[in-house]
Amino acid sequence: MNIEAYKEVFLAHLSTKIKVKEPKNLYEPILYILNLGGKRIRPVLTLMSCDLFGGNYKDALDASLAIEMFHNFSLVHDDIMDHAPLRRGKSTVHEKWDLNTGILSGDAMLVLANQLFESYEAKTYKRLMKLFNETALMVCEGQQLDIDFETKNDVSLDDYIKMTSYKTAVLVAASLKMGAIIAGALEDDAQKIYKYGLNLGVAFQLQDDYLDVFAEEDFGKQKAGDIIENKKTWMYLKALSISDSKDKTSLLSLYKNKSENKVMKVIGLFEKYNIPQLVKIEIDNYTNKSFKNANDLSINENGKKMLLDFGFNLMNRKI
Amino acid sequence: MNIEAYKEVFLAHLSTKIKVKEPKNLYEPILYILNLGGKRIRPVLTLMSCDLFGGNYKDALDASLAIEMFHNFSLVHDDIMDHAPLRRGKSTVHEKWDLNTGILSGDAMLVLANQLFESYEAKTYKRLMKLFNETALMVCEGQQLDIDFETKNDVSLDDYIKMTSYKTAVLVAASLKMGAIIAGALEDDAQKIYKYGLNLGVAFQLQDDYLDVFAEEDFGKQKAGDIIENKKTWMYLKALSISDSKDKTSLLSLYKNKSENKVMKVIGLFEKYNIPQLVKIEIDNYTNKSFKNANDLSINENGKKMLLDFGFNLMNRKI
Repeated sequence: MNIEAYKEVFLAHLSTKIKVKEPKNLYEPILYILNLGGKRIRPVLTLMSCDLFGGNYKDALDASLAIEMFHNFSLVHDDIMDHAPLRRGKSTVHEKWDLNTGILSGDAMLVLANQLFESYEAKTYKRLMKLFNETALMVCEGQQLDIDFETKNDVSLDDYIKMTSYKTAVLVAASLKMGAIIAGALEDDAQKIYKYGLNLGVAFQLQDDYLDVFAEEDFGKQKAGDIIENKKTWMYLKALSISDSKDKTSLLSLYKNKSENKVMKVIGLFEKYNIPQLVKIEIDNYTNKSFKNANDLSINENGKKMLLDFGFNLMNRKI
Repeated sequence: MNIEAYKEVFLAHLSTKIKVKEPKNLYEPILYILNLGGKRIRPVLTLMSCDLFGGNYKDALDASLAIEMFHNFSLVHDDIMDHAPLRRGKSTVHEKWDLNTGILSGDAMLVLANQLFESYEAKTYKRLMKLFNETALMVCEGQQLDIDFETKNDVSLDDYIKMTSYKTAVLVAASLKMGAIIAGALEDDAQKIYKYGLNLGVAFQLQDDYLDVFAEEDFGKQKAGDIIENKKTWMYLKALSISDSKDKTSLLSLYKNKSENKVMKVIGLFEKYNIPQLVKIEIDNYTNKSFKNANDLSINENGKKMLLDFGFNLMNRKI
């Protein structure tokens, strides 16, 4: 099966399994956000991983739906926290309904995600749930770190990598490991595919930050939105850490006060210190680590190729 | 052991198990709300129930903490939804910190509640989790129904009982059933103690509504706050259902428009239609049902007496 085929079976499962029930005001927003679209990367990875380790992807459908449900729960609550009016070009839940609906429907989604694992027999169930809870808590901690960074003055590059790992990469990693668990993969393989996902997730996020500032085309986001919003990205933190004291002062001041041509000035400083090149090296490091993790798996070459192709296509934004 | 002793061992377990970790801004609000006090009825019931069915209450400590954690999660998010500034006389989490902290710390508490069950072996774990998830979803649905009732014009008495069962009584019921599951009780007994908790929970809530309006002493709440806030309580709904068309119109109008002496007028109508007596009969019905559930259990007479005493003391506000 290819990525598109996995996505299709996932969507079919979603539409069979998740229906609007009473009370409608609780379940309609859940259906709404789940059906806004998206690449469905996480559930696809769960299905693919299950197949790669000799399982049947059909056995991974409920876990993949749980993962997607959790991901969407986190979107609903994060959108409230970020005051985001739009998600995938449509109104966010708290905008379309209201704050309370966003909070409560989100809560219900977290519970529903948990419930979706109940189709697994007790031992597998417990392994999946432990991974799920551990991951969910890291996602909460990552979101908190992200909020903390807004007012923290001494964020390190390691802090940033930890935050982005927790906030986004661990869920990608857990998606893959769940497929491995369901397929009955060796523990060593399950660990390695987790790391593949973790490294790929970090690479993807770093690239997302890079493209936010330096993308040729418009990716549907505000150009350099991270700079406008004073986001302490890897690039900003790296620039701070290697610039001379005059430029460091300028950069800090640009991120504090409103200034004309702020974006242009920050980009100028980034370029002066080769930040685009340095972040590309970092992206390559994480991508290559993930490829090494994939190559180290005890699966056949076709399977490895699938993971490498997936990583390649993801990083080249073909997925 | 008596109620006080169970409460003490529970509090000792809470303080050992739940500590502030990094990121502090996520965990400090969790410790804060968990340590605001309260009667700890739910965790006490879990411990007591485990003992009653021949288990060791110590085995139920993690489940009791999970229940209390979940209860406090729901308080944090409900307080946001209700714009409540105070909880147990202290600032609510979203007041002391902010909205985002309330949402995110609440989310983390729901995950932590899940994690606390991980100390149980796989089969017990799965039974507890299924009950927990089912209960958690009902609590979300109950909260939604409560919100819906604010703008719904045809709320029935049955609707009200369902809402209050979901919003509060099912968690009391689940607390007891979890103790039974951990003790390895018969399924039939586990069902009966669940019903005991459910009926007692509804009786307690109906009495809470009664006392809100007719209490002699001040229970620390605004006198007749439910009437001031146009809460569609059992008493209000019962009055609507049995009053003549003139009084029905008056009652509906009193709950829509601001009116001088509104509380006095509503109480006058309640008394005209014997609502205080009728709700007392209803409270007694639910209390007696719960006592029957306790008496039907296949446990010794001492154990039954403990449950009856607990119910008696709870309903007479001695707990």
